[in-house]
Amino acid sequence: MTVHLVGAGPGDPGLITVRGLELIRRCEAIVYDDLVSDELVDEAPADALRISRRGMKQAAVNDLIVELGLQGLDVVRLKGGDPFVFGRGGEEALVLAAAGIEFDVVAGVSAMASVPGSFLIPITHRGVSAQVTLVSGQSAFGDDLPLETLAKAPGTLVVFMGLGRLDAVAAGLITHGRDASTPAAVISNGTLPNEKIVTGTLRDIAARAATEDLPSPALFVVGDVIAVGDYVESVRVSNRPGVAAS
Amino acid sequence: MTVHLVGAGPGDPGLITVRGLELIRRCEAIVYDDLVSDELVDEAPADALRISRRGMKQAAVNDLIVELGLQGLDVVRLKGGDPFVFGRGGEEALVLAAAGIEFDVVAGVSAMASVPGSFLIPITHRGVSAQVTLVSGQSAFGDDLPLETLAKAPGTLVVFMGLGRLDAVAAGLITHGRDASTPAAVISNGTLPNEKIVTGTLRDIAARAATEDLPSPALFVVGDVIAVGDYVESVRVSNRPGVAAS
Repeated sequence: MTVHLVGAGPGDPGLITVRGLELIRRCEAIVYDDLVSDELVDEAPADALRISRRGMKQAAVNDLIVELGLQGLDVVRLKGGDPFVFGRGGEEALVLAAAGIEFDVVAGVSAMASVPGSFLIPITHRGVSAQVTLVSGQSAFGDDLPLETLAKAPGTLVVFMGLGRLDAVAAGLITHGRDASTPAAVISNGTLPNEKIVTGTLRDIAARAATEDLPSPALFVVGDVIAVGDYVESVRVSNRPGVAAS
Repeated sequence: MTVHLVGAGPGDPGLITVRGLELIRRCEAIVYDDLVSDELVDEAPADALRISRRGMKQAAVNDLIVELGLQGLDVVRLKGGDPFVFGRGGEEALVLAAAGIEFDVVAGVSAMASVPGSFLIPITHRGVSAQVTLVSGQSAFGDDLPLETLAKAPGTLVVFMGLGRLDAVAAGLITHGRDASTPAAVISNGTLPNEKIVTGTLRDIAARAATEDLPSPALFVVGDVIAVGDYVESVRVSNRPGVAAS
């Protein structure tokens, strides 16, 4: 009996790890997050149990993976992103350990860098950002975001699941001293074909995003690296072979 | 002509992405970081150019990938971890864009969560850490670490390439107000068979690490999540099937 806590990556199914895909292809049961791509779930053997966690609370997921593990099945618990980056993988690991079930953790590509990277925004860049701060806008992790210290943190700020609190977070950062002209971006469905980015500044990003009606999941990114991404993209487009300089 | 900036992941070759491995298997040239595993480089076609960047400065790497791209080769630039997390992928993207060379970026698993995760340490954990701060101890990114604000940042601190400055960083965090009893860990060669962890507190971690003569690369992690990892591991061991309770 073994349960594998596997990170599916940010959305693009090509960004799962080689080991993660191998484990899916030989599992007997797969329990998958809502945001995981169908292509990955479809890689499980035809006779594998397929269980979506949609609508299940975390406690029910914990009970489920323990139950499947105790049945002696080889289980993949497929989680969006990385299990240990706002993924509650630690809680799942703990219940498995307490139940005496063998388990391992297979890391995944976090949205942190891959989602901005999909728009050529490097979350670190020499001379621009040497520090990254990650927080979550979702209540399980993000109650009482320490906006005063976040506003003073140099470098790049990445807010997971930040769509619901975009206005409050952006305004709070300005209130606590972050320059209102700091570049900001909201990226919805990053790395997927329907990915979309809205850029602006801390001052106007919430209003700009509101006009686009962006779907979740979305990452909120704040910092001068967004300007680096814009610059790389502009250079790339202007130097693209076959594109005449205007 | 296309250059792919590919993240190799933290060390374990099974943690590269599916797309990254596919690109290696059909490239015509591979330019790889020193820390990338030989198993991944060996996946390149037998007749592919293989160029280690060992001993090359960043400017020379930039020139090399532009030159190979201009020759019309399909090039994989294989970088440790994720290209955009202290990986200088933004600089490489910029020179490629400026040279009019088509390129893309394939994200990788960063050491950030995968290396602590290899010891069951979740860098976020509900009720324990809802924030992660990443910095680099290496000079290109890490000059003048803002120890005063880092000491006040809640949650987990992850220092990349932190071995050389371990003593100074730990002492500086205490000087600026972080509790000296905060759990701390140094992880060397994380995710590889020879991975090793040294745990302690901010007060004693540098001395403890010094007695072990840990090789680079190493990640320095500070925060209560280390105690979570220790706890999960202890529960796992005590409940392991076939292990009698003592």
